[in-house]
Amino acid sequence: MSRVLRFDLADVRFPTSLRLDGSDAMNPSPDYSAAYLVVRTDEPGSASDEPLAGHAYVFTIGRGNEVQLAAIRALEPFLAGRDVDEILADLGGLYRALVSDSPLRWLGPDCGVVHMAIGAVVNACWDLAARRAGKPLWLLLADLSPEQVVDLVDFRYLTDALTRDEALGLLEQRAAGKAGRAEALRRDGYPAYSTAPGWLGYSDDILATLCAQAVQDGFTQVKLKVGSRLADDKRRFALARATVGETVGIAIDANQVWDVPTAIAWVRELAALRPVWIEEPTSPFDILGTAAIRKGIRPVPVATGEHTPNRIIFKQLLQAGAIDVMQIDACRVAGVNENLANLLLAAKFGVPVCPHAGGVGLCELVQHLAMFDYVALAGTMDGRMIEWIDHLHEHFTDPAVVTAGRYQAPAAPGASTQVRPESLAEFSFPTGPAWRDAPATPGNGARLR
Amino acid sequence: MSRVLRFDLADVRFPTSLRLDGSDAMNPSPDYSAAYLVVRTDEPGSASDEPLAGHAYVFTIGRGNEVQLAAIRALEPFLAGRDVDEILADLGGLYRALVSDSPLRWLGPDCGVVHMAIGAVVNACWDLAARRAGKPLWLLLADLSPEQVVDLVDFRYLTDALTRDEALGLLEQRAAGKAGRAEALRRDGYPAYSTAPGWLGYSDDILATLCAQAVQDGFTQVKLKVGSRLADDKRRFALARATVGETVGIAIDANQVWDVPTAIAWVRELAALRPVWIEEPTSPFDILGTAAIRKGIRPVPVATGEHTPNRIIFKQLLQAGAIDVMQIDACRVAGVNENLANLLLAAKFGVPVCPHAGGVGLCELVQHLAMFDYVALAGTMDGRMIEWIDHLHEHFTDPAVVTAGRYQAPAAPGASTQVRPESLAEFSFPTGPAWRDAPATPGNGARLR
Repeated sequence: MSRVLRFDLADVRFPTSLRLDGSDAMNPSPDYSAAYLVVRTDEPGSASDEPLAGHAYVFTIGRGNEVQLAAIRALEPFLAGRDVDEILADLGGLYRALVSDSPLRWLGPDCGVVHMAIGAVVNACWDLAARRAGKPLWLLLADLSPEQVVDLVDFRYLTDALTRDEALGLLEQRAAGKAGRAEALRRDGYPAYSTAPGWLGYSDDILATLCAQAVQDGFTQVKLKVGSRLADDKRRFALARATVGETVGIAIDANQVWDVPTAIAWVRELAALRPVWIEEPTSPFDILGTAAIRKGIRPVPVATGEHTPNRIIFKQLLQAGAIDVMQIDACRVAGVNENLANLLLAAKFGVPVCPHAGGVGLCELVQHLAMFDYVALAGTMDGRMIEWIDHLHEHFTDPAVVTAGRYQAPAAPGASTQVRPESLAEFSFPTGPAWRDAPATPGNGARLR
Repeated sequence: MSRVLRFDLADVRFPTSLRLDGSDAMNPSPDYSAAYLVVRTDEPGSASDEPLAGHAYVFTIGRGNEVQLAAIRALEPFLAGRDVDEILADLGGLYRALVSDSPLRWLGPDCGVVHMAIGAVVNACWDLAARRAGKPLWLLLADLSPEQVVDLVDFRYLTDALTRDEALGLLEQRAAGKAGRAEALRRDGYPAYSTAPGWLGYSDDILATLCAQAVQDGFTQVKLKVGSRLADDKRRFALARATVGETVGIAIDANQVWDVPTAIAWVRELAALRPVWIEEPTSPFDILGTAAIRKGIRPVPVATGEHTPNRIIFKQLLQAGAIDVMQIDACRVAGVNENLANLLLAAKFGVPVCPHAGGVGLCELVQHLAMFDYVALAGTMDGRMIEWIDHLHEHFTDPAVVTAGRYQAPAAPGASTQVRPESLAEFSFPTGPAWRDAPATPGNGARLR
């Protein structure tokens, strides 16, 4: 029998705010960071000399990463010393036990650093499970029976919109074609769009150069950040349109900066440039506001979800007809299990899922969920794509790969979530070489005022 | 010039799970706890030898209190070293700076331990301000001009329901009678209701005894926990009704355990016993679900709010017509400032506010907000009352006092948030005498499975 030994944690921060990569109207100077978790076991690993371990993380943008780590540490007693077989045989049970522990639930519930910490622990166990099975996570999930998938979901607070039986039916109706779709996925990959050109801190020159590059690289959609100054947005959007031409889609993303009336007025001013969607027009909590915005800017589609804290808000965004596109995030909710609920809700309401990615390792992890969705649930890639930013992937042992505008299906066992040991050492905060000798950054500076 | 020196933090936990005080259908065995903050300054105190300090806390129920403390610690750099005058002259600015810091916001936004940590820091600064002014917090707030009050609020995400001008109008229309209402408050106190009889872990005998005691003590409303077993709820509710008679109100509280269809079916079964409200029938995030429940159980009123993470969800509960009673909590949101927004929203929609209390120090702090509401905003106590549980008040230097079913208006300067030093020492976790020699409790046990 093998056991979980402990959690190894690392505070990993990249000084990205020095170059304004990732800058938007809400987040002017992020230092892309990860609260990084390794679930260590004493089981001999099949692929290396190291014992089997599961890797996962929460993506943060600098200050407070240590709070996220404290929340992950608080979950260690739920796993340490337990039989690995027993844990992996019931990942639905593990997930439900973690989100139901009443003292920890009091600190959310279903939101914030404790909820994201549960996500990291659940995701690390999925990485363990996939490594042990010798499969990439997307395939491990796609190979589960419909019954096994619904057993992973917590239907609490969902049954007025989606029952277990309805979820089962959605999965069963796609069960037949799974093998063929897995083959198509391995052959053709999964569509991506590029956010590389659009950061708000970039000059017009960089914007145009990166837009041209994106088209040349085979992307059929790019995304621009908006919401700081309307005149700038119009100029930048028009420049992007002129650069990419009429057939490439341009999404715009306000990162939550607007109130409802402002969102409606602002997007109407940009509508003539034909955005494929407006993303995060207002607070992620504002279901009724998002619905009002969608109504007020028709026919511009609305997308949101990267900060949606849980399946209960996603349920209501769908019930209220507030969104045209659902954007799940791999690290915001309580892991693979809650995202399975989110995918099932989207399928029930017929809304396509286009995952949020970028950050640190979001592309790596979320690709598995989109690929599961294609193979086992949605059954199509039409109207679907995963965000792509070619940034920080070199730090991963199995980085996501995008070729000619498409994610390639991962083949390595696991969830693609392992950071290279050299990178962990280099970017450990605050003692790693990258930080020891560096000036204070806006995202982590000592002077915060 | 005086300066903020540092944050002193304490991990305070009471082993309440040993007696099942506080047990409900969602939280079977809480250890009532506080992530306790003292903002130290170098300014000479007026009332004692100690320099001026501000006290506040986040109420938690055991495990994870250390995560809450880590979040408060992360905010120390925003205040340490700063001029006390400058901070207290613009508490609206401090609040908005804290909720807008983008790396910390990423860990919420507007929810979870980081948001509650902001609440603790903001509330500690209000305690400082009130001590310095020599006034109880309710009076300090009531003495502000309407203009000063709206300057404390963050209207971001609210303007589709409540603009600054509308808020100003609500306050101005009550400006004239403030002195008279303050006098009435000092004379008559503010109505309370008692939750003491209703904990789910209590036997029928204890339930009946405590119900009779509550009536004898002058309470006109009691509250029972429900949601575990319907037959038990019917028996307990009928026993309570028989004990308190027809003229005393009985509220029931499900602590979020139900889905929408279950809530409707269950409450219908209890409706004949005439609950004055059903509290927290489902997830605090489920605005549309709560609205559907209210519609499905008419005329039973719906109350919720103690876990509502922010003003954006409160706004929607009101917009959707989901609640008859709004229950603010002193420690769940980002402090006094966000609760001013919540009170203003309630006033705009004409919904009475009956604050959640109990826990550790929730009565002490929230009474100030209800009393401000009466004096400066609602202008009436009709249909309003504050929850009361006579539990753990002995640990406070200025405990809330309820006499003949009414909270007495605090007279001491400050926010009533200071815990006695002896109590801090005795209940410090895990090294204080109360824990050092005690058995592991269900709320904090070493064995979590």
